[in-house]
Amino acid sequence: MQFSKKDVLDIASLSAEDINMVLDTAVGMKEISERPIKKVPTLRGKTVILFFYEPSTRTRMSFDIAAKRLSADSLSISASTSSLVKGETLIDTAKNLESMHPDVIIIRHSSAGVPRMLARTVRASVINAGDGMHAHPTQALLDMMTVRERKGRLSGLRLAIIGDIAHSRVARSNIVGFTKMGASVVVAAPPTMIPLGIDALGAEVTHDIGEAVAGADVIMMLRIQKERLRSFLYPSDREYARFYGLNIKRLEKATKDVLIMHPGPMNRGVEISPEVADGPFSIILDQVTNGVAVRMALLYLVAGGQRHADSD
Amino acid sequence: MQFSKKDVLDIASLSAEDINMVLDTAVGMKEISERPIKKVPTLRGKTVILFFYEPSTRTRMSFDIAAKRLSADSLSISASTSSLVKGETLIDTAKNLESMHPDVIIIRHSSAGVPRMLARTVRASVINAGDGMHAHPTQALLDMMTVRERKGRLSGLRLAIIGDIAHSRVARSNIVGFTKMGASVVVAAPPTMIPLGIDALGAEVTHDIGEAVAGADVIMMLRIQKERLRSFLYPSDREYARFYGLNIKRLEKATKDVLIMHPGPMNRGVEISPEVADGPFSIILDQVTNGVAVRMALLYLVAGGQRHADSD
Amino acid sequence: MQFSKKDVLDIASLSAEDINMVLDTAVGMKEISERPIKKVPTLRGKTVILFFYEPSTRTRMSFDIAAKRLSADSLSISASTSSLVKGETLIDTAKNLESMHPDVIIIRHSSAGVPRMLARTVRASVINAGDGMHAHPTQALLDMMTVRERKGRLSGLRLAIIGDIAHSRVARSNIVGFTKMGASVVVAAPPTMIPLGIDALGAEVTHDIGEAVAGADVIMMLRIQKERLRSFLYPSDREYARFYGLNIKRLEKATKDVLIMHPGPMNRGVEISPEVADGPFSIILDQVTNGVAVRMALLYLVAGGQRHADSD
Repeated sequence: MQFSKKDVLDIASLSAEDINMVLDTAVGMKEISERPIKKVPTLRGKTVILFFYEPSTRTRMSFDIAAKRLSADSLSISASTSSLVKGETLIDTAKNLESMHPDVIIIRHSSAGVPRMLARTVRASVINAGDGMHAHPTQALLDMMTVRERKGRLSGLRLAIIGDIAHSRVARSNIVGFTKMGASVVVAAPPTMIPLGIDALGAEVTHDIGEAVAGADVIMMLRIQKERLRSFLYPSDREYARFYGLNIKRLEKATKDVLIMHPGPMNRGVEISPEVADGPFSIILDQVTNGVAVRMALLYLVAGGQRHADSD
Repeated sequence: MQFSKKDVLDIASLSAEDINMVLDTAVGMKEISERPIKKVPTLRGKTVILFFYEPSTRTRMSFDIAAKRLSADSLSISASTSSLVKGETLIDTAKNLESMHPDVIIIRHSSAGVPRMLARTVRASVINAGDGMHAHPTQALLDMMTVRERKGRLSGLRLAIIGDIAHSRVARSNIVGFTKMGASVVVAAPPTMIPLGIDALGAEVTHDIGEAVAGADVIMMLRIQKERLRSFLYPSDREYARFYGLNIKRLEKATKDVLIMHPGPMNRGVEISPEVADGPFSIILDQVTNGVAVRMALLYLVAGGQRHADSD
Repeated sequence: MQFSKKDVLDIASLSAEDINMVLDTAVGMKEISERPIKKVPTLRGKTVILFFYEPSTRTRMSFDIAAKRLSADSLSISASTSSLVKGETLIDTAKNLESMHPDVIIIRHSSAGVPRMLARTVRASVINAGDGMHAHPTQALLDMMTVRERKGRLSGLRLAIIGDIAHSRVARSNIVGFTKMGASVVVAAPPTMIPLGIDALGAEVTHDIGEAVAGADVIMMLRIQKERLRSFLYPSDREYARFYGLNIKRLEKATKDVLIMHPGPMNRGVEISPEVADGPFSIILDQVTNGVAVRMALLYLVAGGQRHADSD
């Protein structure tokens, strides 16, 4: 069997088989990062461009480490230092990058759809590292990997996603991913943070965090991005914590072996209490570890796997 | 035969033999970037420093990819993050870099002459990636490579360079390079954009774009750098496009197999129309591809070739 | 014998044996940088993170070159581009980095104690690249290496450190290091630039530069960091140079084979005259060269040496 996709643009474009293939591959990749010599020659001589129009240390570093552990050459461009974009259309920028023969372009952009446009323009594989409020597929894949690792399966689980659903590409990609793999998803947030049409993605909606927590196998807290919220959407940290923050007391109604996730960086004391973040149910740091593994798997599948061996 | 230069500071310092040697070497290097495994061990263990006092993603990335495909270790410093320059003379900065034993220093600087000063100070090879309005030799070399690739020769061709000649190091280096290789060069621009003494470099001068296009084998459009032009030198995009922009209609008077070039990034609809930029005569993206090849060739010739093997 | 430390946080934590081991190892490492192929596979597959909360090109580049010459994969993060820190505690940032399985984290931070806190949090080795006014151990080690290289020993030498002792982590680390190795240290500065309790570190104090220079085997001039000094602490360049700058005339009272050092970048004409900086006694550029060697040694000792071979 072989990975059928040139690009990884969103979870909706991946089949359940694709997702399983990524997660299975990532299990093997994770083992590489645990060796004394954390490097394999798999992608030697491949060129990976990290093109980040939005600042991101966390995701960029995860991809960069993934590329280096596979022996690929990685280059970073950030929009702030980029003269590529100066008076140039994004299509021209894309064609320019393409002309330097990269194998993979990893792109983060504040506008939804930019990775797809890029993928249509270039022969290189494109991996979406987050576009606007649309999708963040590698985050959803690492989340699925982390849950599967602990629970042995995704099917039949109940996932609660709590926080600012409206502005969250993490929420969107996880709703699509977990439901596709047979889990059920409930989202909980104040009415102002629930986007219209979210139920069409397959999620139940509630405004009561208690209701979402009850019976959840996995609770995923979202980061409150205060810098993106206007004041009438967000009264105060204290009030948000009181109604939508996850604390020990609220956890009592969850299943006994509930898993607590957060995509980071956390606002401790706001959406999540320190006791929960550092508690026995937290798998937040496993998410970070698995992020490297999932990104290694994706780089391998699009740039080093069967797909390319055929055409080379 | 071997490359005789320690540094590549401008085209004027290179002989026609030097230029042919660079272009011939670049042909072999280009083939490396077309392989599935785009990497050779030629410069393993060599240290290449990219020192950019002016922002540049395009050129920096081209050099960085070139260094990596030859297995050199490359390090980037940009002036904005550089504490090297803080209260320190450029000579001290140069001596400091030198003390870390780099093999090649690639420098871009807003002041003409800085690469030459650097080259006199350090034992490392210096490659000028653009200094002020003086020279941009790697751009001229990649332009010559791209024309030679299409036409089979440079000698006897007629090159028209159109745009802001006065502020363009690309124009200066190309005038010197193409005339040295036996081509003739005509420059066309409004009187305010023609520098005094440009004819001494060997170029004909006209203010009529039609005259420059007529009979040209190669047309090189320059980027209008609006950020550098004061308003009395540059009335409006529309007026500039009307008198000095290249469009389909103007192309009618050129030779049938004319080549259209642009160093990028393009202002579409200003100095060049989209139909021309994307049309059958455009070799703009070949320029980008050959940029990597020419820079690989230069790195190889100054750091890995016969010259160093002798002295080591 | 093997290096006993997981981390290199300050000179006080190192024994004289540790210091000798670092300096002996650095001698071998220095030779690697003098080869045509300046690279050994020692740290292949190791991940080194350069985490600089304060801007620094010089030190960051030295570490980066050191890592690359040992074949480690190095990644740079700077605080300005870092979303890691946004609304996140430093402990969370540390745990996040740790989850990506780095082998060494090199950190520079404006607050004293941050490297120690990091070292307590992560399994990776931590190397302090300068924290507040506390310590800069790699600078002191390269200084000791450079003096030992010239004098054959440290014991019994007399070191004069001249300049703004109060704000200098370089001074602190060197006082501790040189006295530990059997040298005597005198510091000279205006009263406003001498911190309380400096004699407890083992240094004599004088306000007379002539007294410090007399009989000194080594003179270390500190950079005047004008940007950190309030105006009542620092009247003018001219006045500072007159009373505390090192010039040829002042050197007459030093020993005949005195060594002149400066951690850089220099303010020529302020704390040091050009004649002295470029004169026959200056070993300022040797310091830069040995900086790479000492950092290679430290990376090797914490990440590649016996310590890790045991546990792997």
